[in-house]
Amino acid sequence: MKALVFDGALALKNLPIPEPRDGEALVKVLTAGICNTDLEISRGYMQFRGVIGHEFVGMVERSPDPNQVGTRVVGEINAGCGECPACRSGLQRHCPERTVLGILGRDGAIAEYLTLPVSNLVAVPQGVSDEKAVFTEPLAAALEILEQVRIRPADKVLVIGDGKLGLLVSMVLRLTGSDLLLVGKHRPKLDFFARLNGRTALLSELDATGDKFDIVVECSGNPGGWKLAAGRVKPRGVLVLKSTYHGNLEINPAPLVVDEITVVGSRCGQFAPALRLMDSCLVDPMPLISAVFPISQAEDAFRRSQESDSIKVLLKISS
Amino acid sequence: MKALVFDGALALKNLPIPEPRDGEALVKVLTAGICNTDLEISRGYMQFRGVIGHEFVGMVERSPDPNQVGTRVVGEINAGCGECPACRSGLQRHCPERTVLGILGRDGAIAEYLTLPVSNLVAVPQGVSDEKAVFTEPLAAALEILEQVRIRPADKVLVIGDGKLGLLVSMVLRLTGSDLLLVGKHRPKLDFFARLNGRTALLSELDATGDKFDIVVECSGNPGGWKLAAGRVKPRGVLVLKSTYHGNLEINPAPLVVDEITVVGSRCGQFAPALRLMDSCLVDPMPLISAVFPISQAEDAFRRSQESDSIKVLLKISS
Repeated sequence: MKALVFDGALALKNLPIPEPRDGEALVKVLTAGICNTDLEISRGYMQFRGVIGHEFVGMVERSPDPNQVGTRVVGEINAGCGECPACRSGLQRHCPERTVLGILGRDGAIAEYLTLPVSNLVAVPQGVSDEKAVFTEPLAAALEILEQVRIRPADKVLVIGDGKLGLLVSMVLRLTGSDLLLVGKHRPKLDFFARLNGRTALLSELDATGDKFDIVVECSGNPGGWKLAAGRVKPRGVLVLKSTYHGNLEINPAPLVVDEITVVGSRCGQFAPALRLMDSCLVDPMPLISAVFPISQAEDAFRRSQESDSIKVLLKISS
Repeated sequence: MKALVFDGALALKNLPIPEPRDGEALVKVLTAGICNTDLEISRGYMQFRGVIGHEFVGMVERSPDPNQVGTRVVGEINAGCGECPACRSGLQRHCPERTVLGILGRDGAIAEYLTLPVSNLVAVPQGVSDEKAVFTEPLAAALEILEQVRIRPADKVLVIGDGKLGLLVSMVLRLTGSDLLLVGKHRPKLDFFARLNGRTALLSELDATGDKFDIVVECSGNPGGWKLAAGRVKPRGVLVLKSTYHGNLEINPAPLVVDEITVVGSRCGQFAPALRLMDSCLVDPMPLISAVFPISQAEDAFRRSQESDSIKVLLKISS
């Protein structure tokens, strides 16, 4: 099968179709997405080697659960041991022995086939197209903020970063009714949210104000985002650290203590609420798709996803 | 009156008795304490200039409220504007216009007299001696952790730092019934907590284990404490940043996001619960007093408080 492999460099390769282990299903990938984490991995993050990619929708070809065969599914990317306290409390994504699809110890989704534990797979409602379904994982990650932090309707919320993550986070958090502002460096990207009647500003426009916010969500994926976030959160406010990136931050801890700021690291979320919001059209990620490539052009797709005007790049793998 | 003044250097000076402003009382200081924040201020933290010190018990000499005269009091150290949203919601300690006794824009407590707004003063129960009452402010700061973070009886808690803050935090947090371990570098200091049947370990002893904790409280006041804390908190755990210090931290943000850690900055707390715990003898800070000096030897007291075997140094100012 064709697969996009990172082994220090990125290359499309021919690999054997993977053999599912005990309790795993074999999934034929229909469509996959490229995420910022994939770009970070291609720069060395997580020291990952193997098939890259973790956003996908696919069709179950083989499964220990016969009812699952032929089902269109998305997949929770963390596979736990099933037995530790984290797994037993439903937090397999924090299992210390976990593998993570295309990120940690497990081949990923930019390939014609992948394997995942049966219990990781979630059926996709008919009303959610393949293209939308690929957004389940990043949308679940955006929703994870609301699992961790209570955002009240009267809160002022600042989202930093106009990339795919910042846009999806804004689309989700506006559902709280809060007074949300998305800031970034690129007017054309901000306009994806402005066209939904979302409130947006360029960084330079925000700089001209002294506004502070109850909740600040850092999605820019660079150290400047942290500094901006820390300077814009109200005393006793919450700073959500959403983007992972390679390297260290230099922070001044005194204002965190003096202003009693809470910093919340936030990663993966649950798939069912994400599918519900897309099925009910309360969140529509379709405008965020910049391009769709066939798997044979996966390297081009990867390059395209790094261009400054790109939001989400998809790979059409099978039909 | 005699007062310990920091104006780039620390010196005992003779100053006029301060004149209370509208709504303020004049307090004759009976006993004052020296806190790590005072040591940080004497190294440049907060750029403070004036009378140093913020831990005290005193007697009200003059007050717009005649019932207050002659009352033995402790004092909330933050004085707000009284009108902003923070003040109106009872959080004057987060008022952007606040002054802070001996820390920010307001002369402090290591002096024969001080002034504070009438509403900042809290009467001390008869059962709480002057020496104990001086601990009200740092004990309230320790209790603030429980205002911000829920600690469950079954939680594993790690407190880092065997100085006065770490010892007081340990004495307060053990009241939750949690499995609490205090770690530090100094066996003689750890023994203050061990003598209360508290569980303690030297850093080197902790290093030999891989133990992780639901809640980690960093009270060491140095960047190494952050690194230790971040490495010892469980996925989805809480890291409480309690000590303020001068300078920056270099942190790796990726593990915070991947493990979804919550970092909570924590500062000042409320006085009434602290007084209740001392009045009921559930917390007894008396063993933490290393020395008591007269105000005439305030500079010596300051030096003594910086010695490695010192916990809390008090100044007896009046009787």
